[in-house]
Amino acid sequence: MPNKKTDLVILGTIALDDIKTPFGSVSSVPGGSATYAAIAASHFAVPGVISIAGKDFPPAQLVKLKSRGINLEGLSKADKTFRWKGYYEFDMNEAKTLETKLNSIENYAPEIPLAYQSTKFLLLSNIDPKVQIKVAASCLKAFVVLDTMNYWIKHSRKKLTEAMKMADLIVLNDAEARQFSVEVNLVKAAKAILRMGPKYVVIKKGEHGALLFSEGKHFSAPAYPLEEAKDPTGAGDSFAGTLTAYLASQGKTDEKTVRKAIISASSVASYCTEDFSINKLIKLNKKLIEERYDIFKEIRKF
Amino acid sequence: MPNKKTDLVILGTIALDDIKTPFGSVSSVPGGSATYAAIAASHFAVPGVISIAGKDFPPAQLVKLKSRGINLEGLSKADKTFRWKGYYEFDMNEAKTLETKLNSIENYAPEIPLAYQSTKFLLLSNIDPKVQIKVAASCLKAFVVLDTMNYWIKHSRKKLTEAMKMADLIVLNDAEARQFSVEVNLVKAAKAILRMGPKYVVIKKGEHGALLFSEGKHFSAPAYPLEEAKDPTGAGDSFAGTLTAYLASQGKTDEKTVRKAIISASSVASYCTEDFSINKLIKLNKKLIEERYDIFKEIRKF
Repeated sequence: MPNKKTDLVILGTIALDDIKTPFGSVSSVPGGSATYAAIAASHFAVPGVISIAGKDFPPAQLVKLKSRGINLEGLSKADKTFRWKGYYEFDMNEAKTLETKLNSIENYAPEIPLAYQSTKFLLLSNIDPKVQIKVAASCLKAFVVLDTMNYWIKHSRKKLTEAMKMADLIVLNDAEARQFSVEVNLVKAAKAILRMGPKYVVIKKGEHGALLFSEGKHFSAPAYPLEEAKDPTGAGDSFAGTLTAYLASQGKTDEKTVRKAIISASSVASYCTEDFSINKLIKLNKKLIEERYDIFKEIRKF
Repeated sequence: MPNKKTDLVILGTIALDDIKTPFGSVSSVPGGSATYAAIAASHFAVPGVISIAGKDFPPAQLVKLKSRGINLEGLSKADKTFRWKGYYEFDMNEAKTLETKLNSIENYAPEIPLAYQSTKFLLLSNIDPKVQIKVAASCLKAFVVLDTMNYWIKHSRKKLTEAMKMADLIVLNDAEARQFSVEVNLVKAAKAILRMGPKYVVIKKGEHGALLFSEGKHFSAPAYPLEEAKDPTGAGDSFAGTLTAYLASQGKTDEKTVRKAIISASSVASYCTEDFSINKLIKLNKKLIEERYDIFKEIRKF
């Protein structure tokens, strides 16, 4: 069976999550940065995934991914799937980890299909920076988007810095930007990260929107005025996935296009939080995403 | 000497402040909600102040206010000026109070010049809600803007609620909106406050911008990307002062005009934080304020 052309490649984790929020709890549900990013991306372009799942990952969930047109050629097999167990307190700003079982991602050596290596858009979503470096080094023609999390900043700063130097656009949340740069002021934090070489730095601020920094330019994206977020898990991954896929769908990476990509990403990420796991994300469609895109226009007019 | 026509009336405190921030410290400098609000307002319209100062308040500072065209007809005299001593930690999000000496504002009975009582725009800036109620009750033709702080929410909720019910537009910061409404989600918090009767609720979020809520409408104002804030004291008061004065200068209070007022207010408030006390605020001019207004346009385009 011939593979469909992939528009972007997404490296990240596939996980089974146990999640508790003030609005309920779920267990052994599909999660992981690649899962969220690829589903989000699939609403804009054809993503090819580089990841690893265990035999315990429900085949029906893989079918769901395939039904969204996601290419799973780069999916490695393991015995057990990576597991994360966590919860959110009432303000839901920060995921608190109760347990992490690395399983599949321990010593994961990514298999990078030949067809992926000429990709023009690569998302290194949250995973061990060692793996991010390996994949980035194999996709030399790509515009590289990198996402990460506090864990790698704390425990693998050197490798992460190396990975970040291979990226064209770095996505961080506000706490991570402060933690990585050791700057309280977000403008200073972004500028410090820009000095490492990427063309763009995007700082996600959850309920406060997102900021884009590049040489001499600044963009401030509003947040969608969401009243009821049920589960923030995967919102950041969906954001990065949509952002990269939007750029791939346009075949452009100029600052104006990145601004539009951020708004699309904010729309998808806001939907992601409205239900647990991938429940809302998988059911999204272009019309719903564009509805919020238009609301973003309205709420910032003056 | 005939009094100049006043475009808006501002009730609030006049204070002498001792302030310490990571960028320096000052003592016995002019402060207070009316001082900041009136100077900020003076860049857009002619404010008349209702406040009280002690004999220890430097006459030279009153001359400064007058030189900005501020009408001081409603200024009562006391023995000693209200004093506030506080500091900010590195993130400068929250003022920590070391000492408050009520002095002049203890048992302050506002004198409301007859000419003020027909004002079309009234700002009840941060002061005891009992005093806010008294002044609002004397200015029955006014579009009323009300600002407050956590202290009154905690210690005078009932009176504050009564004052808020007399307001057309309520300004709060995000922590205060959450504290008053007992809602974590800011959209829900704003809606709860809207249900009390005001036409508009504005939530100031410091480095994250400001939000405007009204019946069925929402506006999200970006923050100016400031790298170096020296002293946040008075930024909120300057915001409220500018907002009210902008509306007065336009003679309009429709939602579109309130959006523009918020952007002007954000511009002035961002300048306010760039130096201690009123130092920067008093030196501002329309050109500088409009420069940032234009930057606000640029940073939100997509």
